[in-house]
Amino acid sequence: MADEPLPFDDRGLAYGDGLFETVLVRDGHPLLWDAHLQRLARGAQRLEIPLPDTQTLASLPGQVGAGLFVLKLLVTRGSGGRGYASPASPTPRLRWRCMPFTPQSAYWRDGVRVRLCRLRLGHQPLLAGIKHLNRLENVMARREWCDADVAEGVLCDQYDRLVETTSMNLVWQRHGALETPDLTACGVAGTLLAALRQRLPIRTREVGVEALMEADAAWVVNSVQGVWPLRQLDDAEGACLRRWTMQDAQRYLQRHAHPVLGYPHDVFDEA
Amino acid sequence: MADEPLPFDDRGLAYGDGLFETVLVRDGHPLLWDAHLQRLARGAQRLEIPLPDTQTLASLPGQVGAGLFVLKLLVTRGSGGRGYASPASPTPRLRWRCMPFTPQSAYWRDGVRVRLCRLRLGHQPLLAGIKHLNRLENVMARREWCDADVAEGVLCDQYDRLVETTSMNLVWQRHGALETPDLTACGVAGTLLAALRQRLPIRTREVGVEALMEADAAWVVNSVQGVWPLRQLDDAEGACLRRWTMQDAQRYLQRHAHPVLGYPHDVFDEA
Repeated sequence: MADEPLPFDDRGLAYGDGLFETVLVRDGHPLLWDAHLQRLARGAQRLEIPLPDTQTLASLPGQVGAGLFVLKLLVTRGSGGRGYASPASPTPRLRWRCMPFTPQSAYWRDGVRVRLCRLRLGHQPLLAGIKHLNRLENVMARREWCDADVAEGVLCDQYDRLVETTSMNLVWQRHGALETPDLTACGVAGTLLAALRQRLPIRTREVGVEALMEADAAWVVNSVQGVWPLRQLDDAEGACLRRWTMQDAQRYLQRHAHPVLGYPHDVFDEA
Repeated sequence: MADEPLPFDDRGLAYGDGLFETVLVRDGHPLLWDAHLQRLARGAQRLEIPLPDTQTLASLPGQVGAGLFVLKLLVTRGSGGRGYASPASPTPRLRWRCMPFTPQSAYWRDGVRVRLCRLRLGHQPLLAGIKHLNRLENVMARREWCDADVAEGVLCDQYDRLVETTSMNLVWQRHGALETPDLTACGVAGTLLAALRQRLPIRTREVGVEALMEADAAWVVNSVQGVWPLRQLDDAEGACLRRWTMQDAQRYLQRHAHPVLGYPHDVFDEA
């Protein structure tokens, strides 16, 4: 248990046959916990991996003390089966680790520079939305730049439609409405995005990068870092496509998201 | 080394950030070894993972004695980096295991029944052809049937073009010519297929399942099992689309492939 090593023949290692979650934990209390458990359950249902009992999962965040942590938990289908063929009665493996965490708070205030990636996400509706262990596309996309000033890479699908960023979800405001990409063919359905969609009318759109360039404000969001407003969008060669000034419109999403995570939602006022 | 467990934070486990090979080893001698090393090198170049030195890799197959084995070797990017971001100077991990192996020799003679899968492989040219650790599509496709009489699942891409089968490559003979699917957008470029293409004129075709139904003979091939002629093709509901009788045409590919692996190439004559 905990973060013990995994055996050579674990299917999580062999095939990425498993799921993970990264959860913000404040003073032993997991944030957006139900949303994380729901996504894990949805993934387990999709891959047909039996989940550890809820009590075991529920006990994990409480094992750390005061302060801010990120809990990474990982469930694999375990060992067995014949090659790709799954074992008839799998014995899944659960592993987890809690690490102290400091969010990139300067990004809350100053916004971030993001860069359009060359890599196009492949369509796989069967695996879209869930947080499975096949993440080479994200790894390869993240290798497209090493400029420390670029916070995230913007990912489109093979039809050049916006999907997400390397490790966050995209939301923007255009013509007075909040919009976010469709995630039914690829991408990960983030838990903070889900929480925001419960609180705000955010429309799903199948659109290209032009939607982002037309936006009055745009953000990348996840349940660990919170909401980063976009300050600059670069193309895949590093040339600037669009700049945003950090104004009141940019604060909007943080006001709704950050209370959920216990993060400040008046970071602009402090500036 | 060998088949020691991998730590929780290994990127092979976290993201499938690595490569593998399965190599037939006869009496300590690896078959198609150069082709396996070449594919591994191609994968390492694509993912930008430094490979273990050739001498270390070359020493692995010799560690088993007389008899037939399958060597599975696995190289991951190791630990480190920040989330999807790779470590600047990765220390890859190499693991391997040799297992006694008995090929499905009845399939050589009797041929196999295969089944069209519902799952469509997503396009990802950046990862196509290499044997990386993101294999959930294969795992999910293999879960579409549990009939022990069905040997492999036939996989098409999202445009319904043939790609491969769940763990083998496809070759067929149509209008007197040998054909195989294009593998530049998805699928694994098998080492036995590569060896056959060096020996025989096999054309790459972007075609749907109708090409298979028109074929006079068809085979699934890999470097561990050799060549299985197709006896029957079923649709995704299990209804028969095409049957082939095991005649001389069906032997053709085995005659060229099996000597490479030390497998018999006159299995039909024995029948």
